[in-house]
Amino acid sequence: MEKVVSYINSHRDNYVEELKEFLKIPSISTLAENKPDMKTAAEFVAGKLRSAGMQNVKIIETKGHPLIYADWLNAPGKPTVLIYGHYDVQPVDPINLWDSPPFEPTIKDGKIYARGATDDKGQMYMHIKTVEAFMKTEGTLPLNVKFIIEGEEEIGSGNLEEFVNKNQELLKCNAVLISDTSLYGPGIPTLTYGLRGLCYMEVEVTGPNRDLHSGTFGGGVDNPINVLAEMISKLKDNNGKIKIPGFYKDVVNLTKKERDNFKTLPFSEKKYARELGVKELKGEKGYSTLERIWARPTLDCNGIIGGFTGDGAKTVLPSKAKAKISMRLVPNQDPKKIAKLFKSFINKIAPKTVKLNMKDLHGAYPIATSLDDSATIAAANALSKVFGKKTVFMREGGSIPIVVTFAKKLKASPVLMGMGLDSENLHSPNEHFNLNHFHLGILTSAYFLNEYSG
Amino acid sequence: MEKVVSYINSHRDNYVEELKEFLKIPSISTLAENKPDMKTAAEFVAGKLRSAGMQNVKIIETKGHPLIYADWLNAPGKPTVLIYGHYDVQPVDPINLWDSPPFEPTIKDGKIYARGATDDKGQMYMHIKTVEAFMKTEGTLPLNVKFIIEGEEEIGSGNLEEFVNKNQELLKCNAVLISDTSLYGPGIPTLTYGLRGLCYMEVEVTGPNRDLHSGTFGGGVDNPINVLAEMISKLKDNNGKIKIPGFYKDVVNLTKKERDNFKTLPFSEKKYARELGVKELKGEKGYSTLERIWARPTLDCNGIIGGFTGDGAKTVLPSKAKAKISMRLVPNQDPKKIAKLFKSFINKIAPKTVKLNMKDLHGAYPIATSLDDSATIAAANALSKVFGKKTVFMREGGSIPIVVTFAKKLKASPVLMGMGLDSENLHSPNEHFNLNHFHLGILTSAYFLNEYSG
Repeated sequence: MEKVVSYINSHRDNYVEELKEFLKIPSISTLAENKPDMKTAAEFVAGKLRSAGMQNVKIIETKGHPLIYADWLNAPGKPTVLIYGHYDVQPVDPINLWDSPPFEPTIKDGKIYARGATDDKGQMYMHIKTVEAFMKTEGTLPLNVKFIIEGEEEIGSGNLEEFVNKNQELLKCNAVLISDTSLYGPGIPTLTYGLRGLCYMEVEVTGPNRDLHSGTFGGGVDNPINVLAEMISKLKDNNGKIKIPGFYKDVVNLTKKERDNFKTLPFSEKKYARELGVKELKGEKGYSTLERIWARPTLDCNGIIGGFTGDGAKTVLPSKAKAKISMRLVPNQDPKKIAKLFKSFINKIAPKTVKLNMKDLHGAYPIATSLDDSATIAAANALSKVFGKKTVFMREGGSIPIVVTFAKKLKASPVLMGMGLDSENLHSPNEHFNLNHFHLGILTSAYFLNEYSG
Repeated sequence: MEKVVSYINSHRDNYVEELKEFLKIPSISTLAENKPDMKTAAEFVAGKLRSAGMQNVKIIETKGHPLIYADWLNAPGKPTVLIYGHYDVQPVDPINLWDSPPFEPTIKDGKIYARGATDDKGQMYMHIKTVEAFMKTEGTLPLNVKFIIEGEEEIGSGNLEEFVNKNQELLKCNAVLISDTSLYGPGIPTLTYGLRGLCYMEVEVTGPNRDLHSGTFGGGVDNPINVLAEMISKLKDNNGKIKIPGFYKDVVNLTKKERDNFKTLPFSEKKYARELGVKELKGEKGYSTLERIWARPTLDCNGIIGGFTGDGAKTVLPSKAKAKISMRLVPNQDPKKIAKLFKSFINKIAPKTVKLNMKDLHGAYPIATSLDDSATIAAANALSKVFGKKTVFMREGGSIPIVVTFAKKLKASPVLMGMGLDSENLHSPNEHFNLNHFHLGILTSAYFLNEYSG
């Protein structure tokens, strides 16, 4: 490992310069106008895999944005690791809140600021550099490696799901290595063993067939904004419990061991609240904040719009109002089942005075993996070696829809070896990635490949 | 009157052509970018008053949009009528729902389609043509006439309020003639004796200090959209009663005579609902629809926005959410008092997890005038003569903030002789004005000046 490690250490700055180029590409998967940028980003990734020494590098077209596949299978008898990541990023609005342009990477205090820096371009790129380090020094890898990189993680991974289902032999592996999660804290080696799922809905309420004068018609007809607000208020009770009948039916409660483990982690509710700028935290009663954000289901409005939203006053009784409402899920909740429950509850509480139009925008299954798995143990050892501390086991409140598919279809162990931080503004203005963790991530990836090769 | 009437009848088409020119000017008072158009509209009105034969025509600058004043005071011993109207219009959004461009007047089936056609350019212009008809035929007016035309009715008439307060001698009159209301129905001569007031608020809710990832943070912190929805849902109960403590304290209930009178008016709830495209009507329990839209206070959300409102799914837990919420008021509710009650109630029901920012965007006092007033009687007679039917007395759900100021400060009788129709899409796409009512309005205005001159 010595040669590999010193190669990685001596190329630290080159890696940052390459990452900058990657981050300049505005690969926003949800916006139609960025389709050409998605292609550019895919070609960038494929090019870097080739120059790293990976074989059979392919850009695979889909109904949506392209996938990138690559492999190196010259270690017979050794296990195979599938490395997954995504090159698509979230939209950048509200753009006015960015201190530097989202697609002009800017380094400040050892952090690189850009959309996608931590989610997931920076984290995914670590593994390409690890493979390169082995190939340039040893001319070989300690085990078999495959890459599958997608451009639709932020919009539900629909086409990759389909690809995995249809190409289980091509992607066959023993473990799936993913860096798209967070460290528990700066410099704390962390392995994430659970992810929440997601059910993301859109509800449109239509009242009158046109916008009306609120003076001439106010009092005569129901108001779609008031109706929508009323319905949203009925989704949760005062204790933060979700009131959709059957919502909690399949929830696997936390074990005493898990709750005790969470309790040992350093966490200050005061500091957390101060950092978010709120006087008081809020969530489901009866659970600690860590339990609520990692291992309990939630319901949040992600967006709402209706009527006149410009400056000044327009006395309108609007025709329509629309809300995006998503629920984070935990094992063993099923997003399809939850979507059904959500729709029937909304239909039940909607008054006869309005029409409804509901869309199931996307879903993801929750997952929790075993702590005794050999890949998990190898990753924990690699993390401890590089960080010089005992590895912490945590869960993550976000969703990586595809992880469950890998685990189920490929019967492989997911290894969630994230190097991000929750404070790095994923999905927000001023997203950034700690360059020290970027570097430690490349080293950890190298040690993992070595450890897991047996 | 013969000469005047035949002059008006023979110039019917010219009046329409002139109105078209007026309607081409996009005089939207609430949008900064239309400031130059406001000036153009004011100059148009002043020019038409001059050519009609009015004297002392002045464009009066204000802190906002200009006023136009004109008078003709050569009928000593006769009463003085102040004619009021406004040249500003509402915004045009949603622009995509217009069948023809809002500022390219289009005539279809005897109706002229344009923003401002009925509210209030078309109705205000009638009186200028009436004066012109008298001057071109008789060379004189049967009584003294003053005009005061403003450009800020749609944004609260703040500067005209101030002008009236400071210029009570200049505006001194016996009656104020206003056409900015509706006929009860096509061809039904109508006098409006009551207007609702308005209290228009904006509530901004701030939760976390930035947009957050709804997976990483969901369950840890309160969501400003959910909080805002919850607060909105607490403003009214299931019977449509407004729950703000003290809200109904100053409400003057309808007399039996008024309720009986409303009952005699032809009205079909079925037809009303069908025309609005709703299965069911909704409003305050215990009152008929006419009572609810004319003479009972209401609360409506006029707009709401927060979080991600684009296409697709963005898993964000937003920092802010904002709603515009307005209340229609009835005698003797006071908008300033209601604004205070609203704010203190919102402050009371807001959780400690969010910050609030509330604005009082504008207000208007409600009014109801006497049916025994001489100006009212003269107007009723004029209407009956021109329409050939008994005049109907109704109320109107909308607000004309300035009417109350005229009545109080000038001690004059408001005469609300509107020629619009509720179905003419005021404040909505495809606003229009019935050209037959436009013509009858010019004739009625002439008969009124004649009748009221004694």
